[in-house]
Amino acid sequence: MKVSDYIIEFFKHKKIKHITLNNGGAISFLADEISRSKKFKILSPIHEQSSAFINDSISRISKIPSVSLVTSGPGATNLITGITTSWLDSVPSIFITGQVNSFEMKKKNEKVRQVGFQETNIIDICKTITKSAFHISKPEDILTLLPKAYDECFLARYGPVIIDIPLNFQRAEIKTYKSSIFNKPRKSDIKKKIYKTSNNKLSKLNNLILKSKRPVLLIGHGVRLSQSVKLAKKLSKSLKFPVLTTWGGKDCFNNYDKNYFGSVGVYGNRFSNLILHNCDLLICLGTRLDTRVTGGNYLDFSKKGKIISVDIDNHELRKIRRPKSYLNFNIDIKLFINSFLKILKNKNKFLKWKKFCNQIRNLLQENDQKSKLVRPEIFFQQLNLFNKKINYYFADTGAHLCWAAQNLKISDKQRFISSFGHSTMGYALPAAIGANFYNPSSCSVSINGDCSFQHNIQELALSQKMNANIKFIIINNNGYGIIRQFQDNYLNSRYFGTCEYIGEINLKKICEGFSVDYHSIKKDNEIDKTLTKIFSSKKTSVTEVFINQNHKIFPKIEYGNSLDNMSPCLDQKSSQIIKYFISTLSKF
Amino acid sequence: MKVSDYIIEFFKHKKIKHITLNNGGAISFLADEISRSKKFKILSPIHEQSSAFINDSISRISKIPSVSLVTSGPGATNLITGITTSWLDSVPSIFITGQVNSFEMKKKNEKVRQVGFQETNIIDICKTITKSAFHISKPEDILTLLPKAYDECFLARYGPVIIDIPLNFQRAEIKTYKSSIFNKPRKSDIKKKIYKTSNNKLSKLNNLILKSKRPVLLIGHGVRLSQSVKLAKKLSKSLKFPVLTTWGGKDCFNNYDKNYFGSVGVYGNRFSNLILHNCDLLICLGTRLDTRVTGGNYLDFSKKGKIISVDIDNHELRKIRRPKSYLNFNIDIKLFINSFLKILKNKNKFLKWKKFCNQIRNLLQENDQKSKLVRPEIFFQQLNLFNKKINYYFADTGAHLCWAAQNLKISDKQRFISSFGHSTMGYALPAAIGANFYNPSSCSVSINGDCSFQHNIQELALSQKMNANIKFIIINNNGYGIIRQFQDNYLNSRYFGTCEYIGEINLKKICEGFSVDYHSIKKDNEIDKTLTKIFSSKKTSVTEVFINQNHKIFPKIEYGNSLDNMSPCLDQKSSQIIKYFISTLSKF
Repeated sequence: MKVSDYIIEFFKHKKIKHITLNNGGAISFLADEISRSKKFKILSPIHEQSSAFINDSISRISKIPSVSLVTSGPGATNLITGITTSWLDSVPSIFITGQVNSFEMKKKNEKVRQVGFQETNIIDICKTITKSAFHISKPEDILTLLPKAYDECFLARYGPVIIDIPLNFQRAEIKTYKSSIFNKPRKSDIKKKIYKTSNNKLSKLNNLILKSKRPVLLIGHGVRLSQSVKLAKKLSKSLKFPVLTTWGGKDCFNNYDKNYFGSVGVYGNRFSNLILHNCDLLICLGTRLDTRVTGGNYLDFSKKGKIISVDIDNHELRKIRRPKSYLNFNIDIKLFINSFLKILKNKNKFLKWKKFCNQIRNLLQENDQKSKLVRPEIFFQQLNLFNKKINYYFADTGAHLCWAAQNLKISDKQRFISSFGHSTMGYALPAAIGANFYNPSSCSVSINGDCSFQHNIQELALSQKMNANIKFIIINNNGYGIIRQFQDNYLNSRYFGTCEYIGEINLKKICEGFSVDYHSIKKDNEIDKTLTKIFSSKKTSVTEVFINQNHKIFPKIEYGNSLDNMSPCLDQKSSQIIKYFISTLSKF
Repeated sequence: MKVSDYIIEFFKHKKIKHITLNNGGAISFLADEISRSKKFKILSPIHEQSSAFINDSISRISKIPSVSLVTSGPGATNLITGITTSWLDSVPSIFITGQVNSFEMKKKNEKVRQVGFQETNIIDICKTITKSAFHISKPEDILTLLPKAYDECFLARYGPVIIDIPLNFQRAEIKTYKSSIFNKPRKSDIKKKIYKTSNNKLSKLNNLILKSKRPVLLIGHGVRLSQSVKLAKKLSKSLKFPVLTTWGGKDCFNNYDKNYFGSVGVYGNRFSNLILHNCDLLICLGTRLDTRVTGGNYLDFSKKGKIISVDIDNHELRKIRRPKSYLNFNIDIKLFINSFLKILKNKNKFLKWKKFCNQIRNLLQENDQKSKLVRPEIFFQQLNLFNKKINYYFADTGAHLCWAAQNLKISDKQRFISSFGHSTMGYALPAAIGANFYNPSSCSVSINGDCSFQHNIQELALSQKMNANIKFIIINNNGYGIIRQFQDNYLNSRYFGTCEYIGEINLKKICEGFSVDYHSIKKDNEIDKTLTKIFSSKKTSVTEVFINQNHKIFPKIEYGNSLDNMSPCLDQKSSQIIKYFISTLSKF
């Protein structure tokens, strides 16, 4: 049996199906064996960066990780941004890099920069951005290190792993093994048992709920990672709290649920932030309470409400720069909910509190920026009307992400995915390709900025080749609007380095070059017609939405303000009504 | 005085002029101050990967390093492939990453993955691929670490450095300094003095020369790095040896010199490899004798000739996997040549040996692949005729690089640049932009494959915006020809992962999208006309050269063969003539 046979068997056993491959000298033997086995679906993007994003995307959507195979040197280093994306969002993706033949590699204490052609020590580079980074230094290593790496992906907090295999080992013979060894309990399962929690602590939480008048359930990305989306729904039904989400948690709770009140944070909805700011109890499931959620002034976050945090990563619970918790549960969310539901006693329906939530939501559905071109808020609100046709939303990074998160409504059956922690431009194009590769009958909407879309535009060729049902939306504000807004606020509107030249790109022609359909929308009243058109086809298309380049990302928490103080200020009348509503809260 | 003021002053003092900037939150203060100072030329590519390549390119061309400014997170990780490119080719480039505010950063022993938005510990990632990687942990650090990093670029063997500066420190006040501190002798100067060599050893070399009948001077990239191109020419005039180069050294010696006999290696010229294989003395200047130069069978390299190596990096001289030297000089090449010229006594003109070299060159100018489409060898030979119009050649990675290196002739006044060690696809497009940014009146030819050109195709927008006189040449062999050739030789022609779909890209339309002129060449007899046309204009243009997708990269050393055994085999007649010529060598 060869190393490659073992890898193929292992992947089969773990039900891994989707592989991206960027071929090249140092991966060529493994690539050849894997392709000959006919056991896998293999996709070859042009740039390894795209492969890493596709892998990340599949590993988010599927319960099974995806694998990227790349060659050594630039093949490997081109993965780094994608690996970091997976690392910061706890995505269990697997990366395999080919390495030069073992006898051509730099020896352990040899201090030259390189020996073999395209040799790079990718393991050292990746140590701080992976759960584990292994180099196979003899063929038999694969028998222990591949299962170990796989387990590491799912051990406690999820994350990516990388394995580096010299070319000559890829076809090397190894001793046989019994496939039963694959079946031993995963360390992750063992580990989960350790994270038990006491009924005592759970009862304490139940008492807090019984006393609470204005509770909130805040759902983060960890709910998805612990595969607890349905459980969280069940919990919410028992709790009857208003539910808020982070951006990462936006697709972990049905946005059409009557108890859902939007997503919070620096670019959250104003009503959502106000609700959170006025709660007296905040149960946080799987959110690290990042400063994009709390605002820079994190000590004022949930100032009036006791914070309860559930997180599998104890380091997050102990993080210095986060609001203080009243109670912490360092446990997998699935275990937490299952245990808690057993003891939960709650008859309160919090009707007054939810009435308040509804009142301010109705009051604060704001949309007052004027424009001769398209208003992005309106665009995304109208996109919601096509939601039955859409399975996955992918948002890139920039202003368009903020407008999308503020205005899209994600149903039970949909996903809303972005590179949340690393916030990577150029992610949403390949990531949408990943969704189609995983689920070819699906429809994805990939939301991009005019600049960020260019980062991996070459992969339009791949989308077209796959005949992928992906609707690429380009919100064109002629450069980096989110940076210009920062320059407006803090640098006296000195615009610089915001990709001013991008306007000279004719996206229509480029789409023709990739044989991809192109549409444009220049006014609010063209939105519906064009969306109807693009969703009536199953082809890849690009739709360029022209907005005013000065259109602001509003509302927004300016640095140092708390969640109840978003910019721009409300008009005096609304402001007074809100004040009055808040004053009633103390009387509940 | 602010940290940014100091940086500006320091750059001015070091005559640094060319900066690439990818703006974003964490670099915004420094970016703003640098742009307001009006002291620099600033270019903003779309992708940070391109910025790193542009920086690398300028730092190769100029004696002064270039600087890249990027934001934290993906801005920083997108640099890695470019930094590794600089590292492996010893390019002194400077990278400055913005970091989140110091108070928002992960504390030293804090084990969360991220605290601040887009926070990534880029320093840990870059430690093994830079001369030094510094984080500024208090504003005053800049006073010591910036000069130290700059010095490190040039200390002994050159290489890139990275400095990470939190946003809040970028405008922080620091104590003033005297600008005279910039003038203290650079460590690199001090260090150079250490590398002295004894006259004894030099005399020994002189004796070897006096005894030699068939000497060769092999010039590598180190000759350029030590700024010794003119000195090497002087040395060659005194030595009167035939001169060969590596690919990295190809632009360090006039290819039109009567003593120049091509470049050696796995994809070298057949006559060059034969000359090297039959020498009795090989003086190697600034080449690490990589296996792409020696072939995999490195112990047979220069089997008949004593190897003399001059290298500033002692680790290279002690490298395990390299041919054994007879004499090593661990010294800067400039110092070596200057010292050696003082004692060199040589009256031999090696006329018989050079006659041999000329004879086999004339015999082995081969070009026998047939094709209805363009033959790339012919294309590059005809491109040589336009050489007066061209300042810089940039070659990407793949088959086109091999054909270019085998057939282009580089004059004294030209440069031939590629990512030699890391062998990075997507390099030649941004790198050519770098040359134009540095020298706007120059003309560059950027040679690419149909796939590799797509890696950073978005930057065509930048070339057009700059109105850069760059002639992009795309050798279209419908995918990765060099991998297919490997699959032919070693994998029974099982083609896989060689970008088969790339043919569906209509480059003409894409060029229209970027407002760039497009030309195509489909037959040998169209070459001259089209080249005449593109060189009569100073505009950016793309020329797609269609070749047979099975056109081989010949001649080539198959793995394990020595330099005298290139594939394909010579015909019987040529083979016998060569044998006869070689048999005469012993009679010199």
